[in-house]
Amino acid sequence: MSNDGSHSPTAHKHRILILGGGFAGVHVAQHLERLLTPGEQHEIEVDLVSNENYMVFQPLLPEMVGATIAPQHGVIPIRRILRTTRVYIREIQSIDLAAKTVELAPGFQPQTKTLGFDQLVVCLGSRLDFSKVQGMKEHAIPFKYLGDAMRLRYEAVRALEEADIESDPDEKRKLLTFVVAGGGFSGVECIAELHDFLAHAISAYRNLKKSDLRCVLLQSAERILPEVDPVLAQYAHQILERRGIEIQVNVRLNAVSADAVVVTSKVSPDSQRIQTRTVVTTVPSAPDPLVSALPCERDRTGRIIVNEFLNVPNFEMLWAVGDCAAVPQPDGIMSPPTAQHAVRQAKTCAANLLAKHRKQKHSKFLFTGLGKLASLGRYSAVAEVMGIKMRGIPAWMAWKAIYLMKIPGWDRKVRVLMDWIIDVILPRDIAQLRIHESDSVHQLFFNKGETIFNEGDFGDQLLVVVKGEVEIIKESKVLSLLKEGDIFGEIALISDQPRSAQASAKTDVHAVAISREAFQQLVTHLPGVRPTIETIMSARGYKHPQLSHVNQE
Amino acid sequence: MSNDGSHSPTAHKHRILILGGGFAGVHVAQHLERLLTPGEQHEIEVDLVSNENYMVFQPLLPEMVGATIAPQHGVIPIRRILRTTRVYIREIQSIDLAAKTVELAPGFQPQTKTLGFDQLVVCLGSRLDFSKVQGMKEHAIPFKYLGDAMRLRYEAVRALEEADIESDPDEKRKLLTFVVAGGGFSGVECIAELHDFLAHAISAYRNLKKSDLRCVLLQSAERILPEVDPVLAQYAHQILERRGIEIQVNVRLNAVSADAVVVTSKVSPDSQRIQTRTVVTTVPSAPDPLVSALPCERDRTGRIIVNEFLNVPNFEMLWAVGDCAAVPQPDGIMSPPTAQHAVRQAKTCAANLLAKHRKQKHSKFLFTGLGKLASLGRYSAVAEVMGIKMRGIPAWMAWKAIYLMKIPGWDRKVRVLMDWIIDVILPRDIAQLRIHESDSVHQLFFNKGETIFNEGDFGDQLLVVVKGEVEIIKESKVLSLLKEGDIFGEIALISDQPRSAQASAKTDVHAVAISREAFQQLVTHLPGVRPTIETIMSARGYKHPQLSHVNQE
Repeated sequence: MSNDGSHSPTAHKHRILILGGGFAGVHVAQHLERLLTPGEQHEIEVDLVSNENYMVFQPLLPEMVGATIAPQHGVIPIRRILRTTRVYIREIQSIDLAAKTVELAPGFQPQTKTLGFDQLVVCLGSRLDFSKVQGMKEHAIPFKYLGDAMRLRYEAVRALEEADIESDPDEKRKLLTFVVAGGGFSGVECIAELHDFLAHAISAYRNLKKSDLRCVLLQSAERILPEVDPVLAQYAHQILERRGIEIQVNVRLNAVSADAVVVTSKVSPDSQRIQTRTVVTTVPSAPDPLVSALPCERDRTGRIIVNEFLNVPNFEMLWAVGDCAAVPQPDGIMSPPTAQHAVRQAKTCAANLLAKHRKQKHSKFLFTGLGKLASLGRYSAVAEVMGIKMRGIPAWMAWKAIYLMKIPGWDRKVRVLMDWIIDVILPRDIAQLRIHESDSVHQLFFNKGETIFNEGDFGDQLLVVVKGEVEIIKESKVLSLLKEGDIFGEIALISDQPRSAQASAKTDVHAVAISREAFQQLVTHLPGVRPTIETIMSARGYKHPQLSHVNQE
Repeated sequence: MSNDGSHSPTAHKHRILILGGGFAGVHVAQHLERLLTPGEQHEIEVDLVSNENYMVFQPLLPEMVGATIAPQHGVIPIRRILRTTRVYIREIQSIDLAAKTVELAPGFQPQTKTLGFDQLVVCLGSRLDFSKVQGMKEHAIPFKYLGDAMRLRYEAVRALEEADIESDPDEKRKLLTFVVAGGGFSGVECIAELHDFLAHAISAYRNLKKSDLRCVLLQSAERILPEVDPVLAQYAHQILERRGIEIQVNVRLNAVSADAVVVTSKVSPDSQRIQTRTVVTTVPSAPDPLVSALPCERDRTGRIIVNEFLNVPNFEMLWAVGDCAAVPQPDGIMSPPTAQHAVRQAKTCAANLLAKHRKQKHSKFLFTGLGKLASLGRYSAVAEVMGIKMRGIPAWMAWKAIYLMKIPGWDRKVRVLMDWIIDVILPRDIAQLRIHESDSVHQLFFNKGETIFNEGDFGDQLLVVVKGEVEIIKESKVLSLLKEGDIFGEIALISDQPRSAQASAKTDVHAVAISREAFQQLVTHLPGVRPTIETIMSARGYKHPQLSHVNQE
């Protein structure tokens, strides 16, 4: 464990530590850099910790999926914005308010790093909450970070590639069905760009046509875009439907599996199963575990309660800014989780951090929002800017102009503008950059009644039942019933033959899957695995389990 | 297993199947599309199988590392080039010449796919051969595919980020040392662009300066660029050295570990250890395992021997094109593995495939190469084009002009040209896109004497000795000696405490590492693991191994 805090030559400085490299955190640092007098620059050290070395310009995330802009152009390297702040690109392991230290996860070397602070600014944003819907963590693609956008694009192209060579019409339909959960800003922009991309890209596939595509938007509220005026939301609804996007309101997403989503109506007892290979989730958000672990007061949704100075009550050295904070506006309501609010909060917070050091009067957060914008892709958008409602092309132009203005740095403005221009003249990019490989040990969820594998399938993984019951079936006869802790699927892996029977989920099933390659490594090298597997196979009637050949790699 | 071959409505057609989506394969298909008469289009079906849905324009690979062009702009989606060919994006599992079938790996569904053929064109290129150097597979970054270029850029930025906050000068030097193995075209272009990128990017790091960088090029031959005229090679050597790149010739790379490379001289008994976190390998190549499994004759390097018609002797229906084929030129020597040769071979092969069907005379492969080009980055290059030797700015302009012309499709030409123009006016992009995560079960190599972990380190993984001996040391005393099959590092994972002792490689050590997360899943769910680990821990003196808490996820 290396310690940069207590014994370094800067230990006598006043240390401001900012946690989080999103809009909130980077702007706090940027404002501090601007406000510090040359004298104060020797007295005060500003440190910032971020998971990634860039911040994501969230409004452009859907355009990265749609391939309108290159993924790297929608992110801004933090070091290009901050000049004197010390930037740490590490994950944060824990916060100790009493000791006034923060511990960072290891980098190249397996050693944690401890940073000390005098004032701490928490800008950790929010996370997606996967816990409310079964199978969401295992099978849905979240839509929040750059990696998510790139993964979604990869999966979308992969689905087109597979659909093009699929001869089974059911499987083909499943591959060409895309579901986005959440009808707020981010869900609407995501489905609009995704549909736009798919509709363009599909022309390159000789066995697919545009009418084969099914894009579904699921919204639990009565209408999409509850954040904007009902007239604008209605307009957006009609535009999307006219393009062929299916919008379901008043529905609840109940479960996600590798195969399908289960959706129930909130106004009737109906429930439906939509077969799909690609599910995107944009709802709902949960606090970062580090925020939940802080000993301060939080609101119902887990956000840190701060006063109008962005300071946490009863914790003089603690501040919170952005999506992780419940910040009161002058109009009494709480700031919504948008970049425009985060940036203004950051400005107020930076001023107050210095005011505290200078022993001056604190300033209040006075911003109430300038407007709302949602892009609908293809030259359309809805917008409410400073009281003016816009839609269609004017709103789309306002959207492009405002966000181009808002992208930090000339570098990015030029790159994004070039991408937009090139998009008008050139076809969409369908190169399928491989981003996400599922880990060799990962979790799966199966809905009651779903087939886990069929007889004759390729044996790609060993499974362990974590919860629920699995039936092994051959010639319509149940051979065995497997419960928690039982393994299955090992025979095809060991014999190198196709699956010898079918496996079905008798109840909802949670399972752990171990890939073929990892299993062979484990059987060969991890003590205890081989004899156990051999014992299980003997008990199942395999007289001479031939585990020896997996030894040869 | 689905079968697209024997029972489909196209079964009566003459089927040409092309394996491989690189320059060779795609150009065979493209030429076939051009040559087929409308009548023949109904008689002949052309299928192509590729791992990726794009082909990589290899000459631009170094520029992707250097961030001169966006990674996706150096690849060309295959479907944008081919119009009537049926394209399968799948891995190939096996080739059966007798049955005239090829089996494809599963896609979304765990089902293989079988394709039939009447004529088979093998365009599987070559692979990097990791087997010659210990630890290369485990720790070196290959330099061949798009993903490799993106990974190298990610690792280079990661090293800068870590170096910027590293307080230990030894570790900092290690992080800022970059080694490229191989002094041919690809190695020279790679180190030139990598150095250029690092030298630009480093200005964004306030604790690093350009003179801290160490870039080393290792070449086993007497000089770099053995492919070109000695005068040009000498020029390139001087240019690179003047920029601060260290070039070592007549050296052999002996071992690669997570920490260092071991290099021995070929002309003296000297050997040295270069401490580094980033090693790139561009040498040597090995045949694809599918090629090695074919029953036909191969040359010394494993390439398929073909005649001047690109046909494989004694296998009338089998053809080979590109890097996987040993193709005789009219001048008697074998075609080198370059795109210009692959493209011409493809043209001849396509003509002969049809000639065979039309029962016409076959044409001979008559190309001997137009020239050689190697970019040195920063407005310099060396070139031999149609007998004319060039260097410096003229060669650099020739390089840019020729490759811009050669990039297939207007789309890509425009995008690459825009990238080149923007590169002149804007700073290099240092956003660190996370591409490669090491798998939760992976292999490691340690040189004799290397520390595997130190007392006090964070316990990030469990290790199993595959080969060699490991010493566990505390207070300079050897506590135990571990051999093949022994596990170590489990205590820190289970107790959630830092490493309680040091582990060192007594001999060269091959090990399997299992990540903290995967280990917890395995202990909790995979039968046999928990009791074995508990027994081992008891034997090591942990009276009451507390494995129960890892149950709670």
